[in-house]
Amino acid sequence: MSNDKKFAVIGGGSWATAIVKMLCENLSEIVWYMRNENAIQHILENNHNPNYLEAIEFDVNQLRLTKDINEAVRSADYLIFAIPSAFLYEELENLTESLDNKIIVSAIKGIIPETGLIVGKHFQETYNVPLENIGVITGPCHAEEVALERLSYLTIACSNEENACAVAKKLSSHYIKCKISDDIIGTEYAAVLKNIYSVAAGIAHGLGYGDNFQAVLMSNAIREMDGFINKVYDTERNINDSAYLGDLLVTGYSVFSRNRTFGSMVGKGYTVKSAQMEMRMVAEGYYAAKCAFLMNKVINAETPIIDTVYNILYLGRNPKKEFKKLTEKLN
Amino acid sequence: MSNDKKFAVIGGGSWATAIVKMLCENLSEIVWYMRNENAIQHILENNHNPNYLEAIEFDVNQLRLTKDINEAVRSADYLIFAIPSAFLYEELENLTESLDNKIIVSAIKGIIPETGLIVGKHFQETYNVPLENIGVITGPCHAEEVALERLSYLTIACSNEENACAVAKKLSSHYIKCKISDDIIGTEYAAVLKNIYSVAAGIAHGLGYGDNFQAVLMSNAIREMDGFINKVYDTERNINDSAYLGDLLVTGYSVFSRNRTFGSMVGKGYTVKSAQMEMRMVAEGYYAAKCAFLMNKVINAETPIIDTVYNILYLGRNPKKEFKKLTEKLN
Repeated sequence: MSNDKKFAVIGGGSWATAIVKMLCENLSEIVWYMRNENAIQHILENNHNPNYLEAIEFDVNQLRLTKDINEAVRSADYLIFAIPSAFLYEELENLTESLDNKIIVSAIKGIIPETGLIVGKHFQETYNVPLENIGVITGPCHAEEVALERLSYLTIACSNEENACAVAKKLSSHYIKCKISDDIIGTEYAAVLKNIYSVAAGIAHGLGYGDNFQAVLMSNAIREMDGFINKVYDTERNINDSAYLGDLLVTGYSVFSRNRTFGSMVGKGYTVKSAQMEMRMVAEGYYAAKCAFLMNKVINAETPIIDTVYNILYLGRNPKKEFKKLTEKLN
Repeated sequence: MSNDKKFAVIGGGSWATAIVKMLCENLSEIVWYMRNENAIQHILENNHNPNYLEAIEFDVNQLRLTKDINEAVRSADYLIFAIPSAFLYEELENLTESLDNKIIVSAIKGIIPETGLIVGKHFQETYNVPLENIGVITGPCHAEEVALERLSYLTIACSNEENACAVAKKLSSHYIKCKISDDIIGTEYAAVLKNIYSVAAGIAHGLGYGDNFQAVLMSNAIREMDGFINKVYDTERNINDSAYLGDLLVTGYSVFSRNRTFGSMVGKGYTVKSAQMEMRMVAEGYYAAKCAFLMNKVINAETPIIDTVYNILYLGRNPKKEFKKLTEKLN
């Protein structure tokens, strides 16, 4: 039974740290891989991650920390990946252990720049992981609020309901409620696209647009997302469910969002490069914009917001002029 | 032609002041009724409304100010009502002038407490104004941002398209974009219900719930609104259009929202009465909650959020306990 199944979390960032905290509410042992050896040592000695969500105090007896990704993979049945998509490809180059019979759960919400694929697809194509062994964890959920034990809702999407339930059970607690879904493709694309819209919200803010415009932008964004996702995978979904609209809103409106912050800097006049250098974290929306833009050459959805963000970030177009043009297309 | 038609704005508050400003961009004369004679005098002498949006400077040559509602009604073809719904009934008691052939445009977004009706319905039932002569102006649009000339989008809903276009034309400018709609009932109910959800957002904030929960609340709210409005008037509408979702978001997320502020005080422990006394403005969501709750006894939509707000505001139930119960119903 799933009770005996081992869980590993792959990643040492804020979202990984938050997920380990959630699992600690239910499991006596969590395998936790991170490449930063100093951080591991710090956690063992001081009970908290020195780099992210320092306020979370761990009982190290529950943690089996390792800097060897192969050991982590070998030791667990459920592998929750929570590293920035930009580093996943590189991390997986060290993987020699087989992924056969492993359940791969992506908490990544991004596009892998090297392949232009969403995470689930990447595992399918590169490692032959069957779709039924893949899952996705989506929010709306900022890691910072998990640290504060503020009530948050997650959606766990798997094509295999039993797997979804097993993951949901281990993540649930008095401050985490989990819903399950079978829309693994839709939820993963929503999680990717919302980062682009969050960059757009940031640019608008940086340019001086106000709350009235932000509401119109988000209202257009959810319709654009709906159209895009339906072209990728048409199924019965309510785009206003928490995993889609909720996730968009928390990212588009929250001060915690690195995508919004990145966009805001660009709107204020920073070049893309200098904005990226100023920020210590990776804005997933940057990679997502390119991938979604290119994908849309094939699927042909109506994507004026994605196009605008792409034009600004990749073609060096003037944010003010591009947004002026965008305002004519919104309604 | 509509070019010769006269416009009157009924009301002296912030939204009325913002609408007069919009009309000033296009019309050489606007009839402006407000009951506060001192304010009229102040505008004539100092070019701005002393009580609301003081930064807006008017050219008084464009304004025909009056404290006589009958003169305003007599002098204009299009009557834009922008007074708090709580005062409309009382104001209209002074009305002796006929409304025959007048186009009544509601910018009120509220329920008339005395009758429990939305504004359009009130004019239909009490003054025999035919539906084709009624219109609605909805946001997302905070008056404060109109004062700053920040780009905002309005929706003008009339069953008669020509009337909608005429109003849209006179309100449009470099900072106002207008869209027209024929969903007069849906937009008006959306504008009313969103105030209840904004109160709910405020209560949640006051109770200490964070951004993650707020996103889930808004995602549930738009689904609840969709279900409610469909029971009232089922037509083809995209609930994610700006007039519905956008309006909900700007009210639920903005610091300008008096409904959110009111809710936040209640969440923090103020009694309903003391919160109302502390605030100088009327929170429309207070009246709307009762009306929607009672209406729902008939239409039977799923309305856990409205029920929660009603229980707190009208039955004196404990906000913390009611929200705890609500969290079990959201997803």
